[in-house]
Amino acid sequence: MGPDPAVADVRRAVRGALAGVEAGALVLVACSGGADSLALAACLGFVAPRLGLRAGLLTVDHGLQAGSGDRARELVQLAPTLGLDPAEVLSVSVGRDGGPEAAARDARYKALDAAAERLGAAVVLLGHTLNDQAETVLMRLARGSGSRSLAGMPERFGRYRRPLLGVSRTRTEQACEALGLAPWKDPHNADQAYTRARVRGEALPVLERTLGPGIAEALARTARLCRDDADALDDWADSAYAEARGLGAGLDVGVLEGLPGAVRRRVIQRAAVDAGAPASALAAVHIEEVERLVTQWHGQRAVDLPGGVGVVRRYGTLIFASNLS
Amino acid sequence: MGPDPAVADVRRAVRGALAGVEAGALVLVACSGGADSLALAACLGFVAPRLGLRAGLLTVDHGLQAGSGDRARELVQLAPTLGLDPAEVLSVSVGRDGGPEAAARDARYKALDAAAERLGAAVVLLGHTLNDQAETVLMRLARGSGSRSLAGMPERFGRYRRPLLGVSRTRTEQACEALGLAPWKDPHNADQAYTRARVRGEALPVLERTLGPGIAEALARTARLCRDDADALDDWADSAYAEARGLGAGLDVGVLEGLPGAVRRRVIQRAAVDAGAPASALAAVHIEEVERLVTQWHGQRAVDLPGGVGVVRRYGTLIFASNLS
Repeated sequence: MGPDPAVADVRRAVRGALAGVEAGALVLVACSGGADSLALAACLGFVAPRLGLRAGLLTVDHGLQAGSGDRARELVQLAPTLGLDPAEVLSVSVGRDGGPEAAARDARYKALDAAAERLGAAVVLLGHTLNDQAETVLMRLARGSGSRSLAGMPERFGRYRRPLLGVSRTRTEQACEALGLAPWKDPHNADQAYTRARVRGEALPVLERTLGPGIAEALARTARLCRDDADALDDWADSAYAEARGLGAGLDVGVLEGLPGAVRRRVIQRAAVDAGAPASALAAVHIEEVERLVTQWHGQRAVDLPGGVGVVRRYGTLIFASNLS
Repeated sequence: MGPDPAVADVRRAVRGALAGVEAGALVLVACSGGADSLALAACLGFVAPRLGLRAGLLTVDHGLQAGSGDRARELVQLAPTLGLDPAEVLSVSVGRDGGPEAAARDARYKALDAAAERLGAAVVLLGHTLNDQAETVLMRLARGSGSRSLAGMPERFGRYRRPLLGVSRTRTEQACEALGLAPWKDPHNADQAYTRARVRGEALPVLERTLGPGIAEALARTARLCRDDADALDDWADSAYAEARGLGAGLDVGVLEGLPGAVRRRVIQRAAVDAGAPASALAAVHIEEVERLVTQWHGQRAVDLPGGVGVVRRYGTLIFASNLS
């Protein structure tokens, strides 16, 4: 008899994510004890030795909830029975920068990075599921900032990998049940003060009701398609930027004129950032005003960008300069 | 004293949409009597003569609601007072193909097209607002089919233009009030049996509450950005398709290998449609299976596509053929 189908799904996802990792390497799983990362941890413990890999567990104690330390210690005690060794609690103190969610995330990744370095881990697995991806896409939609933003969370970045972006949260709960594991239910997940919790508890159920079932899958698919589109356009913009710069200073207006708007604006964005404009402060309106020096030229004056960068058009060239006088 | 700010917004939007229309041309507005198209009609009547254009009104009577004929006749009587002449009621009978919304839309455009032909109109204006666009994007999200789909409704297609995609529904209501016009409230707009009405009445308010205000604007901005991205990628795919075809039959695998996935899949889509696969039946899984003949080649057999199209890889070429045996 084979394994439970939900367990088989999670194991298959883990195997797929670990393809190409060198034999003997250490793979860690970041585990909160929730159904998603607990199922991931258990399946990593099963899959890793079969791929010739070592596996361990990290759990972050944010110290924000009563009993979080006990829960973390229980997880670390459970880890060896799942085939995960080393297993460590990382205690972090959460600041306040950028709101509670962002501060907790920053502290978490800092601690995971340090532990991965110290333990010499090649890969750290994260338990984000298809539903987390759908929630992310919905939150990004509210920014209205295009395909790179709608691309949601990447499957890989740096040493991190997310094997479960194609697996639903329900599936991870089923896997835990089949494996006899009791996942921890994060009270924050039901705390409607958090944006993500509200998206999960209110927005997605209403979308499911009004637009029909399968909305989470559709949002996750949207993320994948938007990521591919954004990657392709970034490729194009990189080579168009190199061409527009040529050998001189500034961007050749003739090259910019020949590009579709989506690529032209990405090239302008790159040039502005390279000239010192902070990417986070550059809004679409700034880029569009620079674009009008190309597409609606009638002798405009310098365009001012954040970070004290100015842009002028001179002799068929856009010149980006700091503190233009 | 200038006009009311809401009226000024709608007039500005109309002027923008009519830039470049030849003097003396006839511009029609498709008007349901709702706030959006009523404000649009009034502002067209004001703006058109100032641009040297003629203006008229069409209203479609779907015959689906008691009193719809009376309402249509009242609109036609109102039209000359708004500076719109000719003004006509187009009576249509709605079939059942594709559901009630799709059937009504098909019947409406068929009637508008025929009337525009008969009256020799250069342009037909449609009253869709920023909120309609946001609703469309949300409904398209449920399909999970990428940037062309998320691009929502275009500002222009054929003879049709949508001047109000950047203007909110509330703004058109304010414009009607300022102009002393009493818009008709379509009972279907509050009928929760219609997907769009549910998106309007349930989904968007919940998103506004969970994600913060401005969600409609963000969705409309998403549509614009996705349209630009999709246009750029279509450009790229067109030229890559021409290059991959070269002079022979089939697609050169070497060219396909050098493309980013988003462009490669668009090229495969084009080749499949040109070989006879119906675009509406081609799903992402089909395209991805053909793609694996390029990216994960291990001597696979022919890939079957809808419409009896088969694809094989032979001597570094993908060959698309009908009724492959």
